[in-house]
Amino acid sequence: MAFKIGLLGLGTVGTGTAQILLDPQGRHPLLQEIEVYRVGVRSLDKPRLVEMSESLLTTDLESIVTDPHVDIVVEVMGGLEPARSLILKAIANGKHVVTANKAVISRYGDEIFTAANQAGVYVMLEAAVGGGIPVIQPLKQALSVNRIHSVTGIVNGTTNYILSRMQTEGGEFSEILADAQQLGYAEADPTADVDGLDAADKMAILASLAFGGRIKLPEIYCEGISKVSAADIAYAEKLGFTIKLLAIAKQDLPAPEKGTSLQVRVHPTLVPKTHPLASISGVYNAILVEGEPIGQVMFYGRGAGSGPTASAVVSDILNIAAILKSGGDAAKLHPLLSCSHQDYCAIAPMEELVTRFYARFLTRDRPGVIGKLGTSFGNHQVSLESVVQTGIHGELAEIVVVTHDVREGNFRQALDEIRTLDTIDSIPSILRVL
Amino acid sequence: MAFKIGLLGLGTVGTGTAQILLDPQGRHPLLQEIEVYRVGVRSLDKPRLVEMSESLLTTDLESIVTDPHVDIVVEVMGGLEPARSLILKAIANGKHVVTANKAVISRYGDEIFTAANQAGVYVMLEAAVGGGIPVIQPLKQALSVNRIHSVTGIVNGTTNYILSRMQTEGGEFSEILADAQQLGYAEADPTADVDGLDAADKMAILASLAFGGRIKLPEIYCEGISKVSAADIAYAEKLGFTIKLLAIAKQDLPAPEKGTSLQVRVHPTLVPKTHPLASISGVYNAILVEGEPIGQVMFYGRGAGSGPTASAVVSDILNIAAILKSGGDAAKLHPLLSCSHQDYCAIAPMEELVTRFYARFLTRDRPGVIGKLGTSFGNHQVSLESVVQTGIHGELAEIVVVTHDVREGNFRQALDEIRTLDTIDSIPSILRVL
Repeated sequence: MAFKIGLLGLGTVGTGTAQILLDPQGRHPLLQEIEVYRVGVRSLDKPRLVEMSESLLTTDLESIVTDPHVDIVVEVMGGLEPARSLILKAIANGKHVVTANKAVISRYGDEIFTAANQAGVYVMLEAAVGGGIPVIQPLKQALSVNRIHSVTGIVNGTTNYILSRMQTEGGEFSEILADAQQLGYAEADPTADVDGLDAADKMAILASLAFGGRIKLPEIYCEGISKVSAADIAYAEKLGFTIKLLAIAKQDLPAPEKGTSLQVRVHPTLVPKTHPLASISGVYNAILVEGEPIGQVMFYGRGAGSGPTASAVVSDILNIAAILKSGGDAAKLHPLLSCSHQDYCAIAPMEELVTRFYARFLTRDRPGVIGKLGTSFGNHQVSLESVVQTGIHGELAEIVVVTHDVREGNFRQALDEIRTLDTIDSIPSILRVL
Repeated sequence: MAFKIGLLGLGTVGTGTAQILLDPQGRHPLLQEIEVYRVGVRSLDKPRLVEMSESLLTTDLESIVTDPHVDIVVEVMGGLEPARSLILKAIANGKHVVTANKAVISRYGDEIFTAANQAGVYVMLEAAVGGGIPVIQPLKQALSVNRIHSVTGIVNGTTNYILSRMQTEGGEFSEILADAQQLGYAEADPTADVDGLDAADKMAILASLAFGGRIKLPEIYCEGISKVSAADIAYAEKLGFTIKLLAIAKQDLPAPEKGTSLQVRVHPTLVPKTHPLASISGVYNAILVEGEPIGQVMFYGRGAGSGPTASAVVSDILNIAAILKSGGDAAKLHPLLSCSHQDYCAIAPMEELVTRFYARFLTRDRPGVIGKLGTSFGNHQVSLESVVQTGIHGELAEIVVVTHDVREGNFRQALDEIRTLDTIDSIPSILRVL
C-alpha cells in the first residue's frame, strides 16, 4: 500500500519536502510507502532544485485536489488565495491536508477545521509554527494533559535576527534591517515580520492548541520592533535584560476553564538575561510552555528554511500515513490529532493586562523630576522597581524607569498625567518587561 | 467507554500520576474517560498524598497485571524486579504498558518490546528520559523523517546541579555533593547519578530511537563527574567553556545505514559557552538533536520530580487511549508508537572516537616543557589548539592544553609517551571537549 501525495507548490518548502520524500533511505521506513504522485507548480519551465519526472508536474492545481488517487494534499504554496480554496476543495474531496500556511490557518482555521471534521479528514500544520521544531505535536499530545498557564515564544526569525544584531553591534533598527534585506534575512517588504503580524498568526495557532479554543486574529494585540532603539537595547542590557519580540498567550492559574479570558499579545519585551528565552539569538526560534504539573518546557530550533520546514511537513505526512496504516477508522478521527474545539477563547483587553513596564523619559528639569515622576506614578498605583538617571542629551536628561507589576490601564493613566508635567519633554520608549 | 488503569506504585511519580487522572478538569477532555481502576502499593497503611478510595489499593501487584478489566498497566514502582516481571506479565495478559523505568527498558528493552509486538500491545516510556520534556514522542514521530546525526543530552539533574554549583561557587565535588545530599538533590547512595550510569540508561533509550536499532548498555562508554575538580571548572571558564556531564550518541553523516557504527558515550565535557547546552543549569535537562534536514532542535525542561514525570506518564496513557478510541486495530500497531527495530546498533570503540581534548599537566621543568609536550603530541598526530601555562603549585607548574580534533587512540598514545618524560609530574585531568 502506498500513500499518494499531491504537492501544491514547489518553492523553498515544497522542494525540501520533495527532497525528503524522494530520498527516504536512512529515515523512518514508512516513508518508503509514501509517493510523490502529483506536483502543482505555477510554471512548468522553471529550473528545479529537485529531480523528478516532468510528468508529475502540472499547473492545474485544482486537478490535484480533486484527483481520486491522491490521499494527502500538501499545501506549501503560501499566501491566502488560492491556498484557502484549494485546502477546502481537498477536504471536500476527502483528502487529508498537510499545510505550512500559518496565514490561512490563523484566519480561516474555523472554516477549515469544521470542514475537516465533517469530512473525517486530518488537517495537520506542524510546519506553520517554528519551522522544524516539533511544537504543534507536543501541544496536541504530550502537553495536553497539563493545565497550560502560558505559551511564550520567539517565533519570528527575522525580527530575532535584527534584534540580536542590534544587541551585538549597537546599530539602529533601520540600518540593520536594510542590511538584513541585502543578506536575505528580511523580505523586500518586511511589514509582516517587523510589525509582528507573522508572530501573531503563529501565536493564534499555538494559543488555540494550548488553551483549547479558537482565537480571533484581530483580537491579538500586536506591536512590532521598528520603534526599538539602540538606546533602549543598551539600557536594557545595563539593567540585566535582553529585548526580544515575544508572542505571549497567558492564563492565570488556577483558571483552567474554557472561556476564561486569556491574554494574547505580540510585542518587544525586556527579557531577564537569566530567562531561558534571553539566550535565543539570530534566526533561531524557541517556544516556552508553562503548565501544571509539568512546569517549564522549552522547544528550540531553526524557525524557518527549506530543510527544517520540510522536516515538519513530512512528519505530518508520516503521522497521517501511520494512522491510516494502523487501521484508524476515518469515521473516528484520532482525538489528539484532529481539532476538537469549537468555541472561541475570550481575549482580555490590554488595559487589564498586569505586567512590568520599562519607560524612557527625556526631561528638562533634573533636580525635581524624579520626585514628580514618582508622585504621578504613585497617584495611579504604579510602584517602581528601579529609576535610573542615565545621561544627558543636549539640555535634556534621560531617565529610565522599570515598574513592578502593574495593571496596564493604570500605567497608561500615569503616563497621561506625566505627559502634562512641564518638566517632561517626551517619552521616547515604552516597553513591557517579562 | 472508559479506559481502566492499573497503577503499579504510589510513590512520587505514582502519586503525581493519580493526581492528574483524578483531577481532569482543564486538561484534555479524553482524560475524563480514563479511570484509576486499581493501585498496587507495598503497604496499605502508609499515609497518602492523594485522596482515593481505599478499595482501589492492593498489595497484590500480580492481581493487577492479570486483571481482565485493566486496559493499561502503568509501572511507576522503579527498580529492576519485580518491575520487569510485572511488565512482561502485563504484556502476556494483553495489557498496554506505560513505564517510567529507564533501568528496566535500557536493560530488558529487547525482551519487553519483542513480547509487546507479539502480543500486539504498546509499551510507552516518555517518562523514562527527561522527566516531563516531550522527547521520546518527537523522536518517534516528528524527528523520524530526518537522518539523525547526533543526540546530545544533559539528562541527569543531580550531576547538572552539582556541576552548576561547582561553577557558581567554586567548590569541590565532594563538598557540593554532601550539601546536595542534605538538600535532597542527590541520593544517599549517589553512584548511579554521579558515575553517569543513570545518564547511560537514558542515552541507551534515546540512541535506540534516534538511530533505529537496539543498544547494548555495557557497550556505552561511561565516565562520571567525581574527578572533575574546581581547578578544571575554573580553567574551562577562562578558556570559554562550561563543564557538563553529557550523554552523546553520534553517527557521522552521510552514513545513515543501519549497522553503521555509532558512538555512544557519557562523560564530563567542556561545552563552548555559546553552545545551546552550555546555559542549561541546575536540575534542568536538555536534549539537543541534530539531523538532516532539520538542523539543530533542542528540548528543555525539568528532568525529574513528581509533576513533570507524571505529565509524561499521563501523556502516554492519553496517547494509547486516543489510538484505541479512534479504532486502531490492535493487530496492526501504530508504526510510529510501537518499536520496529530488532537489530543492534554497532557501537564504535572509544579509541576510534575523534574529538577535542582538554588536559591539565603538572610539570617540573618550566622552560623546556611546552616544547617537549608539543613534540610528544606531534609524534602521535595530535595538533594543539591552545596551550596555557596557568600557574605554579609549589615547585610545579600547571599547563593546560586543548587539542584540535584527534583520534582518541592517538591522544592516549601521546599521553603514554608524555608520562615517561621526566619533566612531567602528573596529569590530574583529561576531559573531552564538545
